[in-house]
Amino acid sequence: MNEDAGKRHYFDWAATAIPEKISTIVEAADGNPYGFPFGNPSSVHLEGRTAKEALESARFRCAQVLGVEPENLYFTSGGTESNALVIHSFLLRKGQGRLLYSGVEHPSVRENCQALGSLGQPVSVIGVEKDGRVGVDNLSTALQKHPDSRFAAIMGVNNETGSQIDIESLISTVRKNQEKNGLPVHFHCDLVQALGKVPVSIGDMDSASISAHKLGGVRGVGLLYLKKKIKGLYTGGHQEAGVRPGTENTLGALALAEILELRAKPDTVRIENEKARERFKYLIGKLRKISRCSFIPEDREDDDPRFSPWIVQLRFCGIPGPVMVRALDQEGIAVSTGSACSSNSPERPVLQAMGLDNQARLEGIRISQGWSTDMADLDALLAGIEKTLSFL
Amino acid sequence: MNEDAGKRHYFDWAATAIPEKISTIVEAADGNPYGFPFGNPSSVHLEGRTAKEALESARFRCAQVLGVEPENLYFTSGGTESNALVIHSFLLRKGQGRLLYSGVEHPSVRENCQALGSLGQPVSVIGVEKDGRVGVDNLSTALQKHPDSRFAAIMGVNNETGSQIDIESLISTVRKNQEKNGLPVHFHCDLVQALGKVPVSIGDMDSASISAHKLGGVRGVGLLYLKKKIKGLYTGGHQEAGVRPGTENTLGALALAEILELRAKPDTVRIENEKARERFKYLIGKLRKISRCSFIPEDREDDDPRFSPWIVQLRFCGIPGPVMVRALDQEGIAVSTGSACSSNSPERPVLQAMGLDNQARLEGIRISQGWSTDMADLDALLAGIEKTLSFL
Repeated sequence: MNEDAGKRHYFDWAATAIPEKISTIVEAADGNPYGFPFGNPSSVHLEGRTAKEALESARFRCAQVLGVEPENLYFTSGGTESNALVIHSFLLRKGQGRLLYSGVEHPSVRENCQALGSLGQPVSVIGVEKDGRVGVDNLSTALQKHPDSRFAAIMGVNNETGSQIDIESLISTVRKNQEKNGLPVHFHCDLVQALGKVPVSIGDMDSASISAHKLGGVRGVGLLYLKKKIKGLYTGGHQEAGVRPGTENTLGALALAEILELRAKPDTVRIENEKARERFKYLIGKLRKISRCSFIPEDREDDDPRFSPWIVQLRFCGIPGPVMVRALDQEGIAVSTGSACSSNSPERPVLQAMGLDNQARLEGIRISQGWSTDMADLDALLAGIEKTLSFL
Repeated sequence: MNEDAGKRHYFDWAATAIPEKISTIVEAADGNPYGFPFGNPSSVHLEGRTAKEALESARFRCAQVLGVEPENLYFTSGGTESNALVIHSFLLRKGQGRLLYSGVEHPSVRENCQALGSLGQPVSVIGVEKDGRVGVDNLSTALQKHPDSRFAAIMGVNNETGSQIDIESLISTVRKNQEKNGLPVHFHCDLVQALGKVPVSIGDMDSASISAHKLGGVRGVGLLYLKKKIKGLYTGGHQEAGVRPGTENTLGALALAEILELRAKPDTVRIENEKARERFKYLIGKLRKISRCSFIPEDREDDDPRFSPWIVQLRFCGIPGPVMVRALDQEGIAVSTGSACSSNSPERPVLQAMGLDNQARLEGIRISQGWSTDMADLDALLAGIEKTLSFL
């Protein structure tokens, strides 16, 4: 019997990563419950103060890794909440201008902006290039067309195509616009698919969203970076300096610090990015030789600096994406179409924003790799695709 | 040396419970990461489907314990989010009437209602009795005074005084009002301090909030019961049937199911409530003999059916609450003033709503017990109080 039988090859790391063993959790879960700083960090007694210290040590560790100040980091329940919190805070600043978001944003940015739009807030979309990236020209055009803009959300790496956006040049654009017109535009960056995978420079942003589970950390924990404190719409207990209410998840915060230290230190990111790039160069080179395979966008190269080497979107001529996903699943290979968050919807707004036609949108699938992806996985994926194509 | 030296006596279970060992977490944390259903429950591949099954099994188990249908339960990040989600959903139903909330609600109800008020939504407060309970008369008065009311939030057990509110009679009031006036009022109940501690009947409510950590479960997980689905304001990934966005916390959901099965089954609640009542009868009887001690409200009896036997608010003549909390902490005893969520604020809106004067509000402290509280804890608390009173 093939010893590989039953083994799965996971290529949906952009949906969620295979979890790492988090020692903080192992120790807290199996130890004496009273041994863990279980107190409510808002309580003034010893149990509360100990928990508060643990929480703040977690914040400090996260800040060290991210190269920012601890007081600019707020723990949330994840990337989606971090995005929603920033966007909906604009409801409390009504009459203060337009929200811009790029055409390739994650649903948690796009749909929350649209929700504000439905409540009367002016919102507009920033156009994107054919490669799914937002260029300086796209942003400048939007800012010129909408001088009432006070917010721009542009993600670091697109979750469906891996398009890697040059955030630094976009922030410069926003700051230059401010110098010219005197009015500040809050620059928000969804870093969920960027952090730990490509180099990022958070300190220049006005806000940024981070998720633990995309890095192999625990579910239900994330971070919001805020250069300047904002008032969140959801309120109730003044935790997290009044930005995010609810009893603080001390264990989750410590677990997040642990995964950031493992995955998001700049040197580690550089090394892992290079390894991922080498693996994808091999994979994309091989896929290119399959005649029915084409990439989205079509001109994506084997080693293409425009894209994160952790995500590739591609299509197989004549095979709808969902069919391909199911067929590969039968072969032990997990891939997806677009965002897991919208896997129940046939719409592909990101691909649409890139100008792709119906057929391409229908056929697109996403392959995303992770830290433990190895050559055996890549070869199994290629073999699975070949086999699938032989009968589809 | 006293073998009890250094031992702590925890009486702040209303802020957060001493955590139970959750076997789901122990197994997942220390096992093969790939062994746990780690997939994104929205993914269509095997990993996703397995995670979805695990998530739905957790929902089913919660529903079994709570005596409701699984499709009426939505996982959230905790009680605060559950409350905020329901309240802010009214922003999407503008022009549809007034929100009522009782004067003794938790900040996550009170302040979120006030936030809506500041956005132009009509909101009003339901008066409370001197014992901190909301009676049929209080609610009827509010409904008559505000015929545009479409929402009423009244908690099951008050988090500062333990006042146990007769929710069933209030729901009847709302339904009768509806029969008379034809307009429905959504009845929301914050059950964070009630579930697992006093009997509850969730099915009659329109919505209810539940938190895991107040039961000894993990932080960052809660439930929202919704009789009828609502559209939440925060959006982004259509998880939880579109009610609560963000990648589902599968492990947290399973951990929540486990703690509900341990703590919230009706028979268990009856037994533990009786034990808690016996312990409090002893404690309150002893406290009553301390001349400087009085209860809030003053007429609270040793075994008083108007109050949950898990929480008591009291005061020591001439000693500010925060001073007493710190002095007892030095003696190894953890108590609090009011809600941990507002421990940094000198305001006591709950006590104010009960008509208490400045002095009483300043002096109030909260003692809350839990499942593992024993006679030794009670006697240590009493000794600690005697000792503290001897020098304060």
